[in-house]
Amino acid sequence: MSKIENKKREILKYDRVGLENVMKRRFFVVPSFQIYNGIAGLYDFGPTGCALKNNIEQYWREHFILEENLLEISGTCITPEIVLKTSGHVDKFTDYAVKDIKNGQCFRADKLIKEWIEIEKKKKKISEERIKELDTLYIKVDNFDENEIDETIEKYKICSPDTGNELSKSYKFNLMFETQIGPTGGCRGFLRPETAQSHFINFKYLLDFNNNRIPFGSASIGLGFRNEIAPRSGLLRVREFTMAEIEYFVDPLKKEHNKFNLLKDLKLPLWSAKSQFNGESINTNITLGEAVEKKIIDNETLGYFLGKTYLFLIGIGIKKDGIRFRQHTPKEMAHYASDCWDAEIETSYGWVEVAGHADRTCYDLSRHSESTGIELVASRLLKETKVIKGIKIVLNKGIIFKNFNDKDKAKKLCEKLDKISEEDKEKLMVDFETNGKIEVDINGEIIILDKEKNEIKMERFEQNVHEEKYSPNVIEPSFGIGRIVYCVMEHCFKVRENDSRRTYFDFPPSIAPYKASILPLFENEKFLDYVEPIRKILVQNGISYKIDKVDSIGRRYARTDEIGIPFGITIDDITLKDNTVTLREIDTMKQIRVPINEIGTIIKNVYNRIEKWEDIIKKYPLFEFTRNGN
Amino acid sequence: MSKIENKKREILKYDRVGLENVMKRRFFVVPSFQIYNGIAGLYDFGPTGCALKNNIEQYWREHFILEENLLEISGTCITPEIVLKTSGHVDKFTDYAVKDIKNGQCFRADKLIKEWIEIEKKKKKISEERIKELDTLYIKVDNFDENEIDETIEKYKICSPDTGNELSKSYKFNLMFETQIGPTGGCRGFLRPETAQSHFINFKYLLDFNNNRIPFGSASIGLGFRNEIAPRSGLLRVREFTMAEIEYFVDPLKKEHNKFNLLKDLKLPLWSAKSQFNGESINTNITLGEAVEKKIIDNETLGYFLGKTYLFLIGIGIKKDGIRFRQHTPKEMAHYASDCWDAEIETSYGWVEVAGHADRTCYDLSRHSESTGIELVASRLLKETKVIKGIKIVLNKGIIFKNFNDKDKAKKLCEKLDKISEEDKEKLMVDFETNGKIEVDINGEIIILDKEKNEIKMERFEQNVHEEKYSPNVIEPSFGIGRIVYCVMEHCFKVRENDSRRTYFDFPPSIAPYKASILPLFENEKFLDYVEPIRKILVQNGISYKIDKVDSIGRRYARTDEIGIPFGITIDDITLKDNTVTLREIDTMKQIRVPINEIGTIIKNVYNRIEKWEDIIKKYPLFEFTRNGN
Repeated sequence: MSKIENKKREILKYDRVGLENVMKRRFFVVPSFQIYNGIAGLYDFGPTGCALKNNIEQYWREHFILEENLLEISGTCITPEIVLKTSGHVDKFTDYAVKDIKNGQCFRADKLIKEWIEIEKKKKKISEERIKELDTLYIKVDNFDENEIDETIEKYKICSPDTGNELSKSYKFNLMFETQIGPTGGCRGFLRPETAQSHFINFKYLLDFNNNRIPFGSASIGLGFRNEIAPRSGLLRVREFTMAEIEYFVDPLKKEHNKFNLLKDLKLPLWSAKSQFNGESINTNITLGEAVEKKIIDNETLGYFLGKTYLFLIGIGIKKDGIRFRQHTPKEMAHYASDCWDAEIETSYGWVEVAGHADRTCYDLSRHSESTGIELVASRLLKETKVIKGIKIVLNKGIIFKNFNDKDKAKKLCEKLDKISEEDKEKLMVDFETNGKIEVDINGEIIILDKEKNEIKMERFEQNVHEEKYSPNVIEPSFGIGRIVYCVMEHCFKVRENDSRRTYFDFPPSIAPYKASILPLFENEKFLDYVEPIRKILVQNGISYKIDKVDSIGRRYARTDEIGIPFGITIDDITLKDNTVTLREIDTMKQIRVPINEIGTIIKNVYNRIEKWEDIIKKYPLFEFTRNGN
Repeated sequence: MSKIENKKREILKYDRVGLENVMKRRFFVVPSFQIYNGIAGLYDFGPTGCALKNNIEQYWREHFILEENLLEISGTCITPEIVLKTSGHVDKFTDYAVKDIKNGQCFRADKLIKEWIEIEKKKKKISEERIKELDTLYIKVDNFDENEIDETIEKYKICSPDTGNELSKSYKFNLMFETQIGPTGGCRGFLRPETAQSHFINFKYLLDFNNNRIPFGSASIGLGFRNEIAPRSGLLRVREFTMAEIEYFVDPLKKEHNKFNLLKDLKLPLWSAKSQFNGESINTNITLGEAVEKKIIDNETLGYFLGKTYLFLIGIGIKKDGIRFRQHTPKEMAHYASDCWDAEIETSYGWVEVAGHADRTCYDLSRHSESTGIELVASRLLKETKVIKGIKIVLNKGIIFKNFNDKDKAKKLCEKLDKISEEDKEKLMVDFETNGKIEVDINGEIIILDKEKNEIKMERFEQNVHEEKYSPNVIEPSFGIGRIVYCVMEHCFKVRENDSRRTYFDFPPSIAPYKASILPLFENEKFLDYVEPIRKILVQNGISYKIDKVDSIGRRYARTDEIGIPFGITIDDITLKDNTVTLREIDTMKQIRVPINEIGTIIKNVYNRIEKWEDIIKKYPLFEFTRNGN
């Protein structure tokens, strides 16, 4: 890490106390159920946090769903076991836990070992060699299996951190919340760990809705759940969270993207698995086009979405130099993925993953297809018509059931022949052509079907085929909205020069929780009369607002700055004379005088990115604000 | 029920098959996990349904949150047991179930009895008397307790409907989904049955955010869960659903609403509990003002929100004469409510509750306050300053702990005196004033505290009090968004005259799933070239769209009508010459020719209710569409 990067981190760390103070005091985010002492990993969004989150979701919806013409769907959180068994989550969505053998307290094994290492390294008189050993362990522990964890705990005599008690052997803990659906106890369910499964389950409906054409993408904004063993790190590791996921279905032979050209010259900070392995730094000097050409990024579709994500993050206020795209190393890849690039944001906690871009191949569709027997495929036109040779078996079921007394046996016979492989068909065909009979083995008993008894016919056929079926691949950009909200707050948190107690957020206006404050100079009828007409203008323009009537105007500016309201509308003595108000912008703190009936358009144009504040300010008279409020 | 009402219901019933067909085929709503045979009571929203639902939520957000300046918050679904124990849900959020004693199948007891009655009444040779008896039973069964249910099942020998087996005794089944939070098994949790509890838990934050002023309202749009015993009726009885809830906090002495005047002349179809009891019909001829004055509706705030709900439902496409407001009878009221008015919508299933407007009094805040020991109150200024007399006990804890060897006893002593009642203080004061000592009973042992030993001081005081604390009351408008989505689909579902196979939705443009379709006349480069520029104009204006290139233009109109797209933009031969397209409106099927660069504004103005189609159509040349596509 360079010196500049080090310095930047220091600044971020320093700011966190102030930020957390504002977050709680101004009701952005608070621990849930606080009057009951809270539950770790659950958070409530207050009016400011909720609006910020809604606006980021709306930005995402416009940036991805509307612009990319994706099919938005909404599935349920409650999911029956069979679905998540098929998807692999029942078996593989786990972390390793260890228990304090006396008081039963649980720990996530990898975190426990890492924290032990951090404490160990701070001890005096530690040798260089030992530090090296611990550093190596620190990196390896993420990929440890049960045995390696147990061996490590035993080797280093790691104890339960609070009590010093011995620790249990490690065991796999499934991270899904379990529940029962209905009253009989017969239907086990889970809260979904991702929205993705709904997309796969509904693939046939989606394909049909898209006139059976591929590629297309579906998208969902909804809740995901993860029963963390011992969550900490505030909003970054929570048990219930909003996800925004895209499943983009492509033909595995055609992973080009028809809008790739629009983004091909974009330079993204890429950190490939290979670079990580070689100890190389992030490559910031390569265009998306080059990265795809050089196969650093596997294909255009994956590259296109990496580009879209980059633009999304910048659009909502993340600073450019605090973003990187890191490719997963083979060992950290999820069970369903063949490749994955995380978008990571630098925060006071270090680099934080906020979005994954996984190539899930045809893993999920194939698994669900196997599990249900329902084809989840698309078809592509063949360049040349193919001739397919095959054998057709025609069973005369009426006669078979009549001829066989054991109906169950007859049923099994028919089922077996329905599912028989082409290879076995060929063998049977030889018998059929030779003897007019075939022999079928049903649970060890040989049963004969006879052409002469009209039980069976077999024919060879040739067929012209114009298209072939295939299982689409899925490129999945998946966003953790809660984490993004937190990162935006860190990146937009500012302190006024010369007054460290005064903080504000320079959110892009489109995502600011409230767009405007309405501030009558004093709580007095003559000023208050203007509140309602101004409020109406804002409502008509869809502009969210906060009315603040209490305290001096200076304190109110400080208060509205603190929650990042970009525009303050002040009703003062001049308003009473000429129907103008002052409009104050948060970052510059400059004020202009504008007629009341123009405020709606001005504010809307800024947050819709039609006009900039720098240009607006030139069109109206500047207004000097003095401490006595005039 | 009048004859007209009867007839209307027939029509609705007839339409349901067609509607359900469209809902599934055009991916509005489908049963969840269908390829795994589905789970009763869970539904997924496809692109059309999801957009419709989003738009209704957005309409709600603007109509309530933005216009009423409510504080939107977002809490978690996962809720620890203690919270729902306090709120009464662990004990009282139940239905009665009975089991088939042989195969274990569960039934909701009241529904089972009602269905039995319906079948019984259809039997031939049933006497008038018997019908009367069954009708009475049908009405009563909703309010039956365990014993009454068991007696009924025994008396009428009601059996398990599918098997004819005997039924078990009825038992209470809690309707909350249960889960474990974290790995230790020590923290039982539930999925919330309502969003309301988050508002109460966060009351202090909300009050502070509103500068400690009352009245104000908070609002949430989020998921609720209800583990129905045996859900049917499609979207009307589901296990996971989106709710939109407002908790409006008022001073119990001041339930006026400062905007009531705006709605006081509105006439709502009201059906009071008294009218229901007296067999009177709905009163459609009374204004909100009169209803509040006559105490039919208890107060202005409740009345104001009934009016807002009425306007909301009409705004999203519910037909006026299919709405009524029904007051709960005392027996059907939820455990937390003192009064409740349901907004009900008439559908092919009968009248369906879509929103409740409950007066929850101070029930929840008081309960949580008792349970946590944390004050959840507001304060009001007194008209006249009050003088309060009291006694102050000052314990010198340092000396007490020094003087007492048994520290535990000293601690208990201090705790007891901290919590002592005013009445007991007075008794102690008499001793103190007489002897300079007081006697305190700690677990049967008399302990003496002595003024001379500096252990205690007691003083009488007088205090001027300007404000008093109180527990705010809560008026709660609570909406079931899923049910509303279904009702909107029923009310907006239309069949073209002269062609019963062609159906469409006349959704208000603001809630239509897609606002516009882009239709190149043929799938041919020269037409396709216009798709992207048109798409861009729509995206810039925030207009959702669907591109449809497949099949004849007539079939495409039919297809886009079927999902209620209000505007069709067709690129035809004339487009190539003069850059105009045709714009077709769904309900009138009329088309006008407009320049491409004007389509964004036209469509946006209609769905923002700035301009009407009737007026727009006069400004542009009409275009005649003929079957061959020109």
